[in-house]
Amino acid sequence: MGLEVDGSIFVPVERLGRQLTAIYQAWGMPAALITPTVDIMLAADTSGIDSHGASMMFLYERLREAGNITMTPRIEVIHDTPVAAVVDGGQGLGHAPSVRATHLAIDKAKALGVGIVTVRNSNHYGAAGAYALMMAKAGLIGVSMTAVAKPTVVPQAGKVAMFGTNPIAFAAPARRNPPFLLDMATSTVALGKLTISARAGVSVPEGWALDADGQPVTDPNIGLLHRLLTPLGATRLMGGHKGYGLAIMVEILSTTLAGSAFGVLREANQPGAQNLDVGHFFLAIDPSTLRPDGGFEDDLDAMIDALRATPPVDPAIPVQVAGDPEYRAAARRSVEGIPIPPLLAGELAAIAERAGAPFLLNDG
Amino acid sequence: MGLEVDGSIFVPVERLGRQLTAIYQAWGMPAALITPTVDIMLAADTSGIDSHGASMMFLYERLREAGNITMTPRIEVIHDTPVAAVVDGGQGLGHAPSVRATHLAIDKAKALGVGIVTVRNSNHYGAAGAYALMMAKAGLIGVSMTAVAKPTVVPQAGKVAMFGTNPIAFAAPARRNPPFLLDMATSTVALGKLTISARAGVSVPEGWALDADGQPVTDPNIGLLHRLLTPLGATRLMGGHKGYGLAIMVEILSTTLAGSAFGVLREANQPGAQNLDVGHFFLAIDPSTLRPDGGFEDDLDAMIDALRATPPVDPAIPVQVAGDPEYRAAARRSVEGIPIPPLLAGELAAIAERAGAPFLLNDG
Repeated sequence: MGLEVDGSIFVPVERLGRQLTAIYQAWGMPAALITPTVDIMLAADTSGIDSHGASMMFLYERLREAGNITMTPRIEVIHDTPVAAVVDGGQGLGHAPSVRATHLAIDKAKALGVGIVTVRNSNHYGAAGAYALMMAKAGLIGVSMTAVAKPTVVPQAGKVAMFGTNPIAFAAPARRNPPFLLDMATSTVALGKLTISARAGVSVPEGWALDADGQPVTDPNIGLLHRLLTPLGATRLMGGHKGYGLAIMVEILSTTLAGSAFGVLREANQPGAQNLDVGHFFLAIDPSTLRPDGGFEDDLDAMIDALRATPPVDPAIPVQVAGDPEYRAAARRSVEGIPIPPLLAGELAAIAERAGAPFLLNDG
Repeated sequence: MGLEVDGSIFVPVERLGRQLTAIYQAWGMPAALITPTVDIMLAADTSGIDSHGASMMFLYERLREAGNITMTPRIEVIHDTPVAAVVDGGQGLGHAPSVRATHLAIDKAKALGVGIVTVRNSNHYGAAGAYALMMAKAGLIGVSMTAVAKPTVVPQAGKVAMFGTNPIAFAAPARRNPPFLLDMATSTVALGKLTISARAGVSVPEGWALDADGQPVTDPNIGLLHRLLTPLGATRLMGGHKGYGLAIMVEILSTTLAGSAFGVLREANQPGAQNLDVGHFFLAIDPSTLRPDGGFEDDLDAMIDALRATPPVDPAIPVQVAGDPEYRAAARRSVEGIPIPPLLAGELAAIAERAGAPFLLNDG
């Protein structure tokens, strides 16, 4: 998760937000879209999900220059029922339409007990968990999933990538504890883990990545060359068909149910087009709809406490629940600031310069 | 999956149904409950999920004798809204209240687009996929999950079992293809895989099961002694925290959202009570609610076809999609009958005799 390295500068969250805002302004994004976009990006950086925050600006610049995304999308609710809606992202970045979709799902769940909203014609939306957590902070069970433009994950028994890392995020509100918050790729690891291993000059476990013949690789540089990740479970023997099945589930809910195209099919028909129409899925459930006794949050506290008290294999490594590392990172970073490694600081400076925006990260 | 062994008898589905019906009648279960119970059990046996059909009668007999379940439960809808409901299983087997819950979820989804129903005060409900498939056959996206009475799965980094295999089933309707049907335990493997390996005298891969110190075992007999399975991913390095997170998600939706107690906590307060209050979760979504263009089923066909056409690692092992093995088994078994190994035939004969029911499997 963390990419903290020597020479990192520690930037207050607010200042990093001003930096991202300045670049988006220079790119011509309207203020009403900048706010949700930057909020979601900062949520990732604050929570230690360094791969999905400010470090994405390099990709976003490239998508913008290639004409894959517009900074002035027309985001519209194109279909709306009491429990469901479809949002068209207007071929912009995914954050703003996804925040809108999340609020719609929350409103529907508050009114009738459940809300399902899909987004189509969108693009990268940051960390899936940020949307699920928004729902949990509103007192709801929240689910967020997304398809991914660039395929990197093979079906079990296949040697060509057909999916992205298709994440699943699930959050649920407790009373004493912070919300339970699961945010996981359905691949064994994300590509970023290969990058980190390559930089550190260490090999990767067999099962993380494959070569062009579908054989496991342990050299992360060869892995990064082929960009073929395994679904969670890695091999048939260890349950790779399960991770593959979950990836399809995410793709069906995010793509097929949103009216987006399955990326590899669109790419086959129209090269370069796979980036144009990414879909997302959001589900909110009001627990009080099924637990009118109001006991959901207390029962979840009891479960979380019991899980944390599980006797550990290694006494030095206590059992955690999903979300713990993110909340720990957020507590630390809200005080210390976000660590920005030198490479990223340089990239952001260059992006700001190319955009004609000020570079603000060194300001005291 | 398959437990086919030498000396198996092949029993027509209809006759196996008569056998199960005769035992339930002798146990005093009312006819209105026998029908859904036997239907769901036969769906498992027909689909090759041998661990969740007739082979469960031994457990059901034991639960009945121990007073953990009643054969005359009062199954009630104790809470009902336009999009959600809670069913009380009345401390019987899980199949009948779960069929009722599935129909409720289907009716709600047909009316408003989505239906969520939980079941509490229930017990073992057979194969999760059977309920998801009922929803898909009704033209809906179907989700079914369940908690499990007996804990066998450790949290990542823990050495005490806190969950059952907490399965996730997800089905979605296509047009030309049979429904997509994922039915997976959130553990690396089910306990049955250790049993099969022990019978065959072969070792199991490191990562399937642990000993009492939380160390991996490769002797399936030692694994069966400790009954400590890993969550999907097996180790921290290979994503075991993801399978653990999914297990919690299933537990929250099936247990906490149903108002059932977390099994290990109930057991701690009241020994022997963990069997008394198992919860399930059902979600149905009408795809036409989000895809009024009616394109969902065709788009899913295109995705399924593309996945099957993925270049395989081994040309002899084509890429499949979830559900393929079950549909193949169903096509064969509807003609050949259900293979009943000698051990199971003997068990069913003994159960029938103890119940005072006729043994029907040898009838021509």
